[in-house]
Amino acid sequence: MSSPARVAIFGPGLIGGSVALALRARSPGTKISIWGRRPEQLAEILQRGIADSVETDPAAAVSGADIAVLCTPVESMRDLAAAMAPGLTPSAVVTDAGSVKACVVEQLEPLLGSRFIGAHPMAGSERSGLAAARADLFAGAPCLITPTSGSDPAALQVVSGFWKELGCSVTMMNPPEHDRLVARLSHLPHALAFALVNLVLNTLPAGSHHLAGGSFRDATRVAASDPVLWTGILTENRTEVVAALREMSKLLESMATALGDENPDSILDFLARAKQHRDSLPLPSPEEAP
Amino acid sequence: MSSPARVAIFGPGLIGGSVALALRARSPGTKISIWGRRPEQLAEILQRGIADSVETDPAAAVSGADIAVLCTPVESMRDLAAAMAPGLTPSAVVTDAGSVKACVVEQLEPLLGSRFIGAHPMAGSERSGLAAARADLFAGAPCLITPTSGSDPAALQVVSGFWKELGCSVTMMNPPEHDRLVARLSHLPHALAFALVNLVLNTLPAGSHHLAGGSFRDATRVAASDPVLWTGILTENRTEVVAALREMSKLLESMATALGDENPDSILDFLARAKQHRDSLPLPSPEEAP
Repeated sequence: MSSPARVAIFGPGLIGGSVALALRARSPGTKISIWGRRPEQLAEILQRGIADSVETDPAAAVSGADIAVLCTPVESMRDLAAAMAPGLTPSAVVTDAGSVKACVVEQLEPLLGSRFIGAHPMAGSERSGLAAARADLFAGAPCLITPTSGSDPAALQVVSGFWKELGCSVTMMNPPEHDRLVARLSHLPHALAFALVNLVLNTLPAGSHHLAGGSFRDATRVAASDPVLWTGILTENRTEVVAALREMSKLLESMATALGDENPDSILDFLARAKQHRDSLPLPSPEEAP
Repeated sequence: MSSPARVAIFGPGLIGGSVALALRARSPGTKISIWGRRPEQLAEILQRGIADSVETDPAAAVSGADIAVLCTPVESMRDLAAAMAPGLTPSAVVTDAGSVKACVVEQLEPLLGSRFIGAHPMAGSERSGLAAARADLFAGAPCLITPTSGSDPAALQVVSGFWKELGCSVTMMNPPEHDRLVARLSHLPHALAFALVNLVLNTLPAGSHHLAGGSFRDATRVAASDPVLWTGILTENRTEVVAALREMSKLLESMATALGDENPDSILDFLARAKQHRDSLPLPSPEEAP
């Protein structure tokens, strides 16, 4: 596809900032406007040349834009969509980067119509904010795009091309499939990391924190993620996350029973199946973030 | 302490091989004998200069040794200790590298007496075998040393100095404390990784494995570990691992309840506490294995 002439980005955090930096690197002719709430941050954005213009008014931010990208927390998206709608040109498309999709699509389609196409670039970091943004955040990362029966095919093509241009590899699925999948591939690992830290570090003898080795560090890396952001994500995807947490809780209980029953064959079989699955994961692409 | 003149290593896998390579690098004057079961592997060890002598007879392997180090799976240690005992010189000390301690110490103290001092260098890899051994595996790694009221203080000093010489930072605790601690810091993270892989990869739609992002990859890295080794570790530390699995199972159920109850404040508090704890973990030393 041809590069968009003008892109409006809502929310200059890790994701929004990285969208802007990736556009600067890959599509230098594209004009960027960034909407944010904090004037001092918007001033920094202008000063660093990350955007061509900055706005605190959503309708003004999308003026003349071909694509608007919502990169704010999911719970802010409905109000922003309602506020930007009057400023959108007839041909403009809107996408987002939220990590849950069913509720976002349900809320935004009525406000924005068939021009809205939900997306979830699966790139991130336990770090947050503009300071953590990187031009290569999306390079090689999967992006799940979630059209519905009400989506405009031309808008879908534009949005799909946009995320590809940032470096993503794109997969389509419907919003409920998306939420079920990411509850298990992303939200559950995050929930386990938060839970493991609280279980272990609350009960360790004082002075033994330095004994945490590689397996504990890896398993809990994402527990350093922004708690406000993750409370929002887990809450928005509540139904699927609750189901995934209960599946995991039952599986751990059954592991405990098998161990307590001194049934090493069943444990060995369980671990061997896991190793086989884990070994069969495709290697991350060399471009993928560490 | 002065470097040992002669060290006998039992089991030339990741840990035993790394002990030998670390001695070669840090204590070039020390003579190394390695006990193993497979003649072709012992031939490779001699050829690569990893040991000065190789043995398939445990008593012969410890002949003249100042220190014997058991680096085999935990379930082989009792038989090896019984078989090596007649060959030990009166001043020789024995240590091990097993990742559980109460059962090892209970089994080996009666066979070896006060000269046996249990140890657990917390270094490893999801890779196994001699091919994965590295001279710097122990550099900066914690080593938990588990003396009992029956331990000889001089033997404790020698064993402690030995692991320090390999690069470990040494912490003392009693064997049951050790098992309780590592069940939560190491065995539980491993069990969670195996469980998460089985839960998620069994239920994913075909062709979606490539969507696994950083949080899933990190949380499951150690599920690629050797299933036989880990069945042994989880089984040997059964009591504490079962307790830790049940604590985690209950915690996940309570997270599910809080989420289902739409109690975002309690979720936010839970995540914020986890982040605070996780952020307070000391950084791994620059020498620590990735």
